[in-house]
Formats: sequence, structure tokens, C-alpha cells
Amino acid sequence: MKNILIIGCGLLGSSLLRSIHRKKIAKRIFVYEKSKKNILKIKKINLPGTIVKSLKEGVKNSDLIIFCTPMSEYKNIILKINNYITPNCLITDIGSSKIESSKIIKKFLKKEISWVSSHPIAGSEVSGPEHGKYDMFFDKWCVLIKEKNTKKKHLFVLNKFWRKIGSKTVVMTPKKHDKIFSITSHLPHLIAYNLVKSAQEFEKKQNYDLIKFSAGGLRDFSRIAASNEIMWRDIFFNNKDNISKAINLFIKNLIEFKKDINSKNDNSILKKLIQTKKVRSKIIKLKQDIDKPDFGRN
Amino acid sequence: MKNILIIGCGLLGSSLLRSIHRKKIAKRIFVYEKSKKNILKIKKINLPGTIVKSLKEGVKNSDLIIFCTPMSEYKNIILKINNYITPNCLITDIGSSKIESSKIIKKFLKKEISWVSSHPIAGSEVSGPEHGKYDMFFDKWCVLIKEKNTKKKHLFVLNKFWRKIGSKTVVMTPKKHDKIFSITSHLPHLIAYNLVKSAQEFEKKQNYDLIKFSAGGLRDFSRIAASNEIMWRDIFFNNKDNISKAINLFIKNLIEFKKDINSKNDNSILKKLIQTKKVRSKIIKLKQDIDKPDFGRN
Repeated sequence: MKNILIIGCGLLGSSLLRSIHRKKIAKRIFVYEKSKKNILKIKKINLPGTIVKSLKEGVKNSDLIIFCTPMSEYKNIILKINNYITPNCLITDIGSSKIESSKIIKKFLKKEISWVSSHPIAGSEVSGPEHGKYDMFFDKWCVLIKEKNTKKKHLFVLNKFWRKIGSKTVVMTPKKHDKIFSITSHLPHLIAYNLVKSAQEFEKKQNYDLIKFSAGGLRDFSRIAASNEIMWRDIFFNNKDNISKAINLFIKNLIEFKKDINSKNDNSILKKLIQTKKVRSKIIKLKQDIDKPDFGRN
Repeated sequence: MKNILIIGCGLLGSSLLRSIHRKKIAKRIFVYEKSKKNILKIKKINLPGTIVKSLKEGVKNSDLIIFCTPMSEYKNIILKINNYITPNCLITDIGSSKIESSKIIKKFLKKEISWVSSHPIAGSEVSGPEHGKYDMFFDKWCVLIKEKNTKKKHLFVLNKFWRKIGSKTVVMTPKKHDKIFSITSHLPHLIAYNLVKSAQEFEKKQNYDLIKFSAGGLRDFSRIAASNEIMWRDIFFNNKDNISKAINLFIKNLIEFKKDINSKNDNSILKKLIQTKKVRSKIIKLKQDIDKPDFGRN
């Protein structure tokens, strides 16, 4: 890799920037960021790379372009970069859903340009370049998206890139990707938002001050429900069919739980509670979470 | 306080044991534990206090008895201790729901004996005396339950006890308690169990290996869904009316979210996502959770 352009320098864009710099993966790193507030932050914390004032400047000089913006901005940016981009440049993105963005890319990106999508499974509830970390992607999974027209050499290049970043890679179709993450990520976020919303409604209706008693469980959900709203609106909209199905499955199971509770069905509920417990040890074994009670909090 | 008997020495009982010992709150601490496995663990890690072989021995010598067993065991233990207990002894418990256990206590406990219930808002997904911590309750809320027949002097004694442990105390009726915690604790646990169950069902049906991609959100729920099944069955059953209502509220809101997503209702969904975000900062401000992104995990 010679030069890399990062478009969008928030939490994940700035983490990639730090990591590419630290691992010396590119000769030059260009950063395009449209928010003046973020640019000021980037300068203040003295992040590496060169901030470009125009997409043109960044695109013309780069071999790899990484979209790190909300997915709803892809179309506008694609229409702009179409004017400067040449076929020797590869594009990727780090968006959390793939089928819909693939449609946008196919529809609007100049024909001879290659885009192979990535999805690093990393993030946090905070936003902005000041929260980025060079090791954000280290030892995390990164899904590489293979479509019909994906060229082997591009997958090879991207695979090498993410491995250098420190990620573990796996290849999937957009369809499989969007199904899996509707369950492991999109539904959990929606559920967290919905739980916090329900608590807020209850608090208002009952006029109880209940947030201060949130340590019994609610606080965990509040972390996820504090995630970036633009990013999550885009994900929910882009993966709506899979998420709808996931919601239906969730509601079906919740109604069954309610029946067990109301009828005090001892066997049925214990079976469920014991069964779900197994997932935690599997997650710990797969090193997908910290191996300490209560996430090591006090 | 002279002598204290802890009945049930699991995660919370052993934490209380450690704390009472460290803070020198009692002259003697007696421990009654029916599980031989736990007794072996207690001896192995050399916990303070005296293990009593019979409830009789512990009850006869104590001024305060603390029930730290699952709530489904209260009745049996009450029937046993009725034979030895005298009116100068106060009983409390640390159960997570209050209306149902209050009925059991009123029905089965010898008439002249006082029981003032407590609920420290503390715990973890792990069980057993080896996981207890002396500072488990430090700076955490402890709810003291006031009923019609609760005597001021007993509330005073318990309040002093929990303050010495290091907890912040608040007084509530059983009704208010069970309503608040149906939302801040019981529903979140049920939702976590239900999400993990739904993921397991999806994984089986699709034959995808999805747990390894759980870092996008699912892993947080898996922690809560690894909690003790006996304790949570008891809570769900004991607070079923409030939990049923909470489930209904949750499903109503989830269906509204689904409508927003399917109709791509930008305004409505953004309003919700922005609104729910506020709870996190409130929780941090109230020191109900760690003030670090991603709970300070890597």
C-alpha cells in the first residue's frame, strides 16, 4: 500500500488512522473530514496524517480509500469522487450492514472502480476522533465481503491490510453478513434502545426517580443505547428486513417467557435459563469478552 | 449488634460475611449453608465466621439473622427457625422482590418475630462464596422495606447496619419497590435471557456459527443471561404481575420501533435514539456505572 485516504474521521476512522500510522502500513495517510468540530479536535490531539480540504486532493493521491462515514453519506461522497477516481484505486468501507450499501455502490459508483466492503467488529458507545484508539481493531474479527464481481486480488489486498492492522479476517456474502449481524449486533442495539425507552416512559408515567436504581441491570443497556444515533438509524434502515424477522423471533420468545412466568412453569423456565447461560462461557472461551465477573467493573 | 447469623453463603452472603467481619460490625458471625460444596469452598478460602451445623445453633445465639438464600427457600427455613427464635432477634433478607416474600413471611413466621426486608442493589453474573467481595455493597443503594407493621426502631437498626457496611439507604414500600425493580432490574434480565435464547434459536436454525461474532452487542447481554437461574426464576415468579406489565410496555414500544424502521421514519427514530442516549449520562452522573467507554474493557 502506498497512500491511504480515510473519509470520515470519527471514532473508527481515527482509530484506523492511528493504527495505520503506528503499523507503518502506508507511505502517506490522507484524512477527509467534513465536520469542522472534528477537524479542530484532530488538530488539537495532534493525530497523524494529512487533513485534505477537498475529496479531490485525497482521492487523486491514494491507492486505497476507506469510507468511515455513516452509510447514509456513501451516495453523496461516491457522486463526488467519481470525478477524480481512477481504476488503480481500491475502495472499502467499514459499514455495519452490506446488502443496501452494495446496491448504492453498484448504482452510483463509476463502473470500472472496485469496492470491496469490510466490517470490523469493533466500536464503542462514544463518538468522535478523541475517543479513537490505535488498538481498536486488534484481535477483533473483520468481515470481508465477497460478491459475484469481487476480484481475488482485491480480497487479497484487503485481507493483508486488516491482518496488518491486527484483525482476524473472515469472508462472507452480503446476505450471510446481514443475517448474522441482525442477531448478534443490530437486534441487541435495538433491544437496548427499546429497554431504555420503556424505562423512560415508565419513569414519566409513575413519576418515580428510577434511574438511580439502574445498577441492577438497566445500566448495561444504557451503554449500548448511548451509541451514535445516525450510525444506528442507518443500520436499522439498511438491514430492515432481517431486523424485522429478528424482532418477530424475539417477541415470539418473550411471549413464551411471559406465559412461563404467569403460569409459574418451573421446568420450562429453568430449562431456558440454564440453556442461555452456556452462551456466556462460549463467548469467554472464544475471547469475545473480558474473562472477569461484571466486565471487571467495581 | 452483637451476633449475626447469615443463612446462605453464596455470592452475596459471603460478601456480607466478609464485610461484617472487616468492618467489625458483629461480635460473632455465624454462617449456615446447606450446600456441602459451598461449605468446602468456604473452608478452603478461609472465610471468617463460624459455620454452624444446624439452624438451631445459629438462631439461638444471634441478634440479627440475614436471609441470603434464594427466595423460594424462605418458607422452609422460616418453618424451621420458628422453633428456636425469640422476639429479641431481628430478621432481614436481601431478596430482589418484596410483595410475595412478605406474604410468605406474614403467613409462616411466628407472630411476635420482626422481619424488616432489605434489598442491596449489588450482585454479579457469577455465583458461589469464592466470588464474594468485601466491598460488594460499598457505595451501592440498599432499599429498606417499610410495611404497615414495621417498627421504627428496627428500621433504625437496619439502616445503621447497612450504613456501616458502606451502602446508601432508602426506604420504600414493597409495592413501590417491586414496581421500580421490575423495570430497572427484572425486565433487563428477562430481556437479556430472551435475546440470548433468540440468538441460540437463530444459530441452530441457520446453522451459522454466530457466537464468535458476538462482540457487536450480544456479548453484553450474555453476561446478564449467565446469572443464577434459581435466583432469577424466583424473582420472575414472585414479581410476575409487574413483570408482565413491563413486558407489555416493552413489546408495545418494540412494535413501534419496528414500524419506524419498516417505514424508514427518520424523525421518529432519531428522536427516540437521541432521547434514550440521555439516560447513560444520567447514570454516569449518578455514579451508577463506570465512567469509561465500553465499561473500560479492551
